[in-house]
Amino acid sequence: MAEHGSSACSHPSERKYKIALCQLFVSKNKLENIRHARELLEAAADGGAKLILLPEMWNCPYSNELFSLFAEEIDADDLSGSPSCGMLAEVSRSRKVTLVGGSIPERFGSHLYSTCCVFGSNGKLRARHRKVHLFDVDIPGQLTFKESATLTAGDELTIVDTDVGLLGIGICHDIRFPELAILCAERGADVICYLAAFEMNTGPLFWEVLQKARALDNQLYVATCSPARDLTINHAAWGHSTVVGPFGEILATTGHEEAVVFADIDYAYIREVRFRSLIGAVATLQMFFL
Amino acid sequence: MAEHGSSACSHPSERKYKIALCQLFVSKNKLENIRHARELLEAAADGGAKLILLPEMWNCPYSNELFSLFAEEIDADDLSGSPSCGMLAEVSRSRKVTLVGGSIPERFGSHLYSTCCVFGSNGKLRARHRKVHLFDVDIPGQLTFKESATLTAGDELTIVDTDVGLLGIGICHDIRFPELAILCAERGADVICYLAAFEMNTGPLFWEVLQKARALDNQLYVATCSPARDLTINHAAWGHSTVVGPFGEILATTGHEEAVVFADIDYAYIREVRFRSLIGAVATLQMFFL
Repeated sequence: MAEHGSSACSHPSERKYKIALCQLFVSKNKLENIRHARELLEAAADGGAKLILLPEMWNCPYSNELFSLFAEEIDADDLSGSPSCGMLAEVSRSRKVTLVGGSIPERFGSHLYSTCCVFGSNGKLRARHRKVHLFDVDIPGQLTFKESATLTAGDELTIVDTDVGLLGIGICHDIRFPELAILCAERGADVICYLAAFEMNTGPLFWEVLQKARALDNQLYVATCSPARDLTINHAAWGHSTVVGPFGEILATTGHEEAVVFADIDYAYIREVRFRSLIGAVATLQMFFL
Repeated sequence: MAEHGSSACSHPSERKYKIALCQLFVSKNKLENIRHARELLEAAADGGAKLILLPEMWNCPYSNELFSLFAEEIDADDLSGSPSCGMLAEVSRSRKVTLVGGSIPERFGSHLYSTCCVFGSNGKLRARHRKVHLFDVDIPGQLTFKESATLTAGDELTIVDTDVGLLGIGICHDIRFPELAILCAERGADVICYLAAFEMNTGPLFWEVLQKARALDNQLYVATCSPARDLTINHAAWGHSTVVGPFGEILATTGHEEAVVFADIDYAYIREVRFRSLIGAVATLQMFFL
């Protein structure tokens, strides 16, 4: 859903930069959440990051009851209806950084989406990704959650051309599906950013292996950003925001507390990894899809 | 490449059985390897296994120089030209077990393949899988190996209907490619068997995460079988033959010594896992491939 995307992208293979993940605590006060997110984004920019991520639902506690109350309309040409995106635009422009702005509840007509807005280093909204794979689960006695009760699923892949290269975007349960990552890689993504509030059942089971697999299988960087854990809400987040390299190696990670996680991204390393392995195999592979 | 496959397969969702992985030591003496493999297969059958795996290149040390010397022609109607497959047919018939017979170098005209033969519990050759993704790598000073110097790549997926359900087959580097596993799952596989002599560089990096990812992403069982480690050859095997469940959980594994690894397979559990999660998401996902 790139709104200002360009097919003539320039992402030189030698590009190097610092990425930061803002694993922040989400309160029940939206204005406070916006203020606090700005604080962490600016700390990340002060730390030298050129690409900064916020988590899924960073302006709103993770609750079907609250999504509608916290929702904003997002008009790319006039962000006055969205204080959350307004702040993101300001920070990205003033600090000249690319922001993958987590997700917020987006109101669009009669629908609500979990939407990630990506802002370029000029402060312009470059793309929005609406969560494709909603998390509906019902394990009696263990875990019941039905996002589709309030949210509508997006229906588009998002790969966005930015100053820091081509970014693929996924939100939480989107990471469970290898096809989304494969398609991002085929279309040239260097980094896939997953904004995710994995919860306390699926976190320990899946979180680490999924990040590693998406990076390793597609030989690119995977960056994930979770809210900090808040055990006072039903859907407490697992945390553990992480950057994984193209061999599936963890480059930086954290626990479940509030944190800004930094890592170095180096596209020359991706090319090197790709050159070392899989030579010859890709051609063979193609046949399965043709 | 199913030779006696059937589209009208019966694999009741309640099926339960024991699987065994024969992680055996491979010597330079082919007849000795065949004798020894029979010994481990019979021990696995004695232990109650209904599906038994051998590793990649179980009748031949892992060396481009030796593949041609150890190669056999495999005629499904007359196995007299293949003492290795002849033994597999005998054991599967006499013990009424399904054998995923690792791989051996197969001579076919002027070509050599790394080929896995699957024998049904009636002793009949049901399918052969020729390794699709050959392992060519050149990291100066670390690792140089070029399978394509002697082997030809196969060009077909293998999903075979057996008494223990639909099995997908991959050989070693085939596991590196998520598409092969996705296609096996889409065509109904309950278990994907990877016969693999991962070596000492890629083993610690990739082996565990790849197995978990293929199982978790496709919500099925993954069973891998490696030779035991022999540090006297160049391409020493990592070992660690493993069975992984549909949540990516390790059900049974071992170190690098010779071992027969047992685990319980329960298809009702796959259905339960699939029912618990991903409901509703699959339909959304399909669009990307349509």
